[in-house]
Amino acid sequence: MATDTLIHDFELPFQLYDVLNTESLCEHTRFSEHSRETFDAVIDTANKMATNLFLPHNHIADKNEPKFDGKKVSMIDDVKIAFDAFRESGFIAGRYSFEDGGMQLPETVMTAVSGYFMAANPSTTAYPFLTAAAINVISHFANDSIKDAFMPRMLTGDFTGTMALTEPHAGSSLADIHTTATLQRDGSYRVKGSKIYISGGDHELSDNIVHLVLAKIPGGPGGVKGISLLAVPKYRLNDDNSVGDRNDVQLAGLLHKLGYRGTSSAALTFGENNDCHGYLIGEPHFGLRYMFMMMNEARIGVGFGAAMIGYRGFQYSLDFAKDRTQGRVAPNNKPEDAAAPIILHGDVKRMLLAQKAYSEGGMSLCLYGSNLIDRINTCIDATEKQDLTELLDLLTPVLKAWPSEYGPKANDLGIQVLGGSGYTREYYSEQFWRDNRLNPIHEGTNGIQALDLIFRKLWQNKSHGLRVLKSEVEKDLHAITTPETALMAKKLNPYLGQLHETVVHLSEVMQTEKATTLSANAQAMMNIFATVVVSWIWIRQASAAEKLLEQSSDTQKQDFYKGKVQAAKYFISWELPTILRDIQLLKDNDDVCTNVQPSWF
Amino acid sequence: MATDTLIHDFELPFQLYDVLNTESLCEHTRFSEHSRETFDAVIDTANKMATNLFLPHNHIADKNEPKFDGKKVSMIDDVKIAFDAFRESGFIAGRYSFEDGGMQLPETVMTAVSGYFMAANPSTTAYPFLTAAAINVISHFANDSIKDAFMPRMLTGDFTGTMALTEPHAGSSLADIHTTATLQRDGSYRVKGSKIYISGGDHELSDNIVHLVLAKIPGGPGGVKGISLLAVPKYRLNDDNSVGDRNDVQLAGLLHKLGYRGTSSAALTFGENNDCHGYLIGEPHFGLRYMFMMMNEARIGVGFGAAMIGYRGFQYSLDFAKDRTQGRVAPNNKPEDAAAPIILHGDVKRMLLAQKAYSEGGMSLCLYGSNLIDRINTCIDATEKQDLTELLDLLTPVLKAWPSEYGPKANDLGIQVLGGSGYTREYYSEQFWRDNRLNPIHEGTNGIQALDLIFRKLWQNKSHGLRVLKSEVEKDLHAITTPETALMAKKLNPYLGQLHETVVHLSEVMQTEKATTLSANAQAMMNIFATVVVSWIWIRQASAAEKLLEQSSDTQKQDFYKGKVQAAKYFISWELPTILRDIQLLKDNDDVCTNVQPSWF
Repeated sequence: MATDTLIHDFELPFQLYDVLNTESLCEHTRFSEHSRETFDAVIDTANKMATNLFLPHNHIADKNEPKFDGKKVSMIDDVKIAFDAFRESGFIAGRYSFEDGGMQLPETVMTAVSGYFMAANPSTTAYPFLTAAAINVISHFANDSIKDAFMPRMLTGDFTGTMALTEPHAGSSLADIHTTATLQRDGSYRVKGSKIYISGGDHELSDNIVHLVLAKIPGGPGGVKGISLLAVPKYRLNDDNSVGDRNDVQLAGLLHKLGYRGTSSAALTFGENNDCHGYLIGEPHFGLRYMFMMMNEARIGVGFGAAMIGYRGFQYSLDFAKDRTQGRVAPNNKPEDAAAPIILHGDVKRMLLAQKAYSEGGMSLCLYGSNLIDRINTCIDATEKQDLTELLDLLTPVLKAWPSEYGPKANDLGIQVLGGSGYTREYYSEQFWRDNRLNPIHEGTNGIQALDLIFRKLWQNKSHGLRVLKSEVEKDLHAITTPETALMAKKLNPYLGQLHETVVHLSEVMQTEKATTLSANAQAMMNIFATVVVSWIWIRQASAAEKLLEQSSDTQKQDFYKGKVQAAKYFISWELPTILRDIQLLKDNDDVCTNVQPSWF
Repeated sequence: MATDTLIHDFELPFQLYDVLNTESLCEHTRFSEHSRETFDAVIDTANKMATNLFLPHNHIADKNEPKFDGKKVSMIDDVKIAFDAFRESGFIAGRYSFEDGGMQLPETVMTAVSGYFMAANPSTTAYPFLTAAAINVISHFANDSIKDAFMPRMLTGDFTGTMALTEPHAGSSLADIHTTATLQRDGSYRVKGSKIYISGGDHELSDNIVHLVLAKIPGGPGGVKGISLLAVPKYRLNDDNSVGDRNDVQLAGLLHKLGYRGTSSAALTFGENNDCHGYLIGEPHFGLRYMFMMMNEARIGVGFGAAMIGYRGFQYSLDFAKDRTQGRVAPNNKPEDAAAPIILHGDVKRMLLAQKAYSEGGMSLCLYGSNLIDRINTCIDATEKQDLTELLDLLTPVLKAWPSEYGPKANDLGIQVLGGSGYTREYYSEQFWRDNRLNPIHEGTNGIQALDLIFRKLWQNKSHGLRVLKSEVEKDLHAITTPETALMAKKLNPYLGQLHETVVHLSEVMQTEKATTLSANAQAMMNIFATVVVSWIWIRQASAAEKLLEQSSDTQKQDFYKGKVQAAKYFISWELPTILRDIQLLKDNDDVCTNVQPSWF
């Protein structure tokens, strides 16, 4: 029981060309050699590779996690075969310039490409994706010497990359890291410290592993302002940049995770023998700022991945619901009638529609975010560029947190559709559910995202992002020409007003002693804001679908568009009103969670 | 990081004596030899046994699931040691009469006893508990000959029991089972068919396993009305009831589950060689009715177990949150200040308070249900007995579904409190989460529970149960004498009105063509009803706690009572208003889920 269709054939063309108008990017110099045809060819390649080389070992890798024998990390061969195919395809460099050996593709298209891999096999996909994320940082902030040393071989996947941020005693609290980087006479640094949860932290897939390590340079400022970023390779580079001796980076052990089991997760010790060479990226003490500047992309990546694992669970349970017969549905509900496929039962329809709303909502949301990056990058008008940048900054916590909250909910419903079968490891629903449980935790827990929203992003640059969002939403709502979508917009309208009132209320509360309630109530604000944003994202989809429905005579396409309209209706009727609770809580300055004392538990 | 305190010392005394007045049961003849002291002694024994013999191997059994070598099922020794201690303690017979070798204990006390075992190790606990459930059926419906053959040795745990209901092709749809029971000339039956998901379906813990099998007697009525119940032992009994030869019951294989891994889950084949002896329980074709009559207890058991696994996850994450330091909390939020325990962070408080509200709410709800059984059993007045029976029937789907929906939510939050640690198998949060995922599925999926509520229980006996519930709730609300609880009652009041209006609306809808929307919207009705019921259950706890708070001078007790009041406030502020969405959906006769077509997905 495993469908080989990773993503519905109509889905990505709909998102990219009907909702987002991605072709218009080709009007810009950077993408002028591209067209819908080249985009589609790249996406088609991704689909085939993901289906043929990533999907088949998703379950096998889960059952056979990487092992460390004290010397080397070993894993099933399928991972390396898939990784090699990925790097040979040039996808790691997909977003980089032709002159760097890249494909000069828009973020929107690269995100779509990533969708196939995340749906097929998130844990094998992590290796090249983490490498791409590391390249992103190096390319923006490292000096030419470091770029030359690492980037070309990272772009081809000969070297892989990691992010080494977390330390055992300080998870989300990066201000408290202990790892140090000490300047030597020759201008290089020696790194010393311990890091955990380093995904892809050790393996034999590549010739070298480049760890991007957060560390403190002794004598620097305290707290988050004194954190620097260093590239620390597993193997040192010789003067001619060829791979040299082992650096003083030791694998302390592998962590045993609940899911994502194919991705090695390492505890690493840097400088146990005081000889761990590191290369400073950019200026001293600016490391955390660099990481934050690259965070928008990384967080969209996590959100989109969560949506795609949710989507795969949805598709898998959909196939099951079509095949599996059980019970009767009126008017054929006599004992002698044949049992009906469970997809005809009302409660199963509800669970499938919810999964569709969550996963395709998250997918569309993150593609919108990726498209914002492209619009920012190609924008000539400085004011518009600033507007879009503020909008992206505001949306980033939502792009990460909403899909990683609702993707797992989809996977939970996926198990429930399968019933007893869903509770066995003979079916895959439980793996999707376990894999996706990571996403509310990493790349900033969803609690951290809610704090980012309520304490920073809502107010950043005098709430400029919020005003840009408002005008983008209003523009879309005014452009609606179809009846069903118009009805949805009418239902959304009062909530837009309530969102505005809530923000005004919060801005006042922040000046009073009631401000202490906000950290405990941050999740309520995230619910309100994210649910309104995703409602808008669903209205955008419904609007496009309803228009196409009027034009199309192809039954399959009509069905697809009807499904989009119905999922949007579901979101507006079933999900949007859930924020009434949150609006009330914030209006009341509810202090129930704030006031609970540790001794009361 | 594992607390040895399974349940807070004050919790069960509070539930049993302050909220439920369990001692008053001792006024009745059946329990006249008992007192609070004997109840406490039994509960204390359970606590010690669960802590010493069940808790230590909970994680080990998860990692070492039962194995089948083609002949026998083997498992780690710890399971048998714990099972033997349990059976030697007499707990399996706890609720039975002294004359049957039992302890003649009330259901309320037996449920409290079960709490320690469910919190400590749900999968080892399953073996004796399933046996108790099978005894319950046999004792009520089997003839004396069958009772004599099986019951005495089941009460001592020399024989264990199972429920063999589900067949591979028909999960929830028992009308469609294929297993047959054919009458022989000597009055015995031969059983033939396949069953799956038989928990405890095979093992070497006991001298015999008695399967309670649903089967059709050829020639009987079709559908659910033609289902009979048979006792089918693994080993036949000789004429003197001594254990004889193997019966024709074959273990086809063990299922590999997502959680509850210590409990063997079997696929069994009955009568492969046409020689499977079964003993009819009660009358032919009444099997399903018998099972339903025992369902109240079984469903309370599942709900209570789910609450207890949720509770254990809560306690585990609470310990973590007290120990783990990270970040700063105002006014000590300068980098040079020491890091704060994460329990001081607002969002962590929220996650802990939600877990407390879910797990203790479910616990209190199910203890209320068990107490109803005791009240019914000891009631002399026929009208009151009928009232309470209708109330229990009405509440049963909620007793099963609400804790098994919210216990797992607590476990999910438990992982989130641990952050990255929660995602590793080195910590236990993930096992609680996996174990508890079974509970929304078995003993009637939560979808089935919602259908039971909306199509049957709300209307049973002209909604008599609903009227009894209303008067019980009003009685409690009128008795409130403390200010905080009075405020909660005031907040609950309009929702009671809306629940009533919704039920009236539904009764009208059922007469129209809009009735087709109800199966897809059943979950919304369950949310409304269950949330109002649990709000009342929390108000009962708050009322008791606030009164005790006024009287108590012990700081630890005061803290405990304050925690109860705060969790109740949380439930009323954060959970109760979530049903505004559901009320609106039902008022609108929302047809979004009903109308979606399979081809639209």
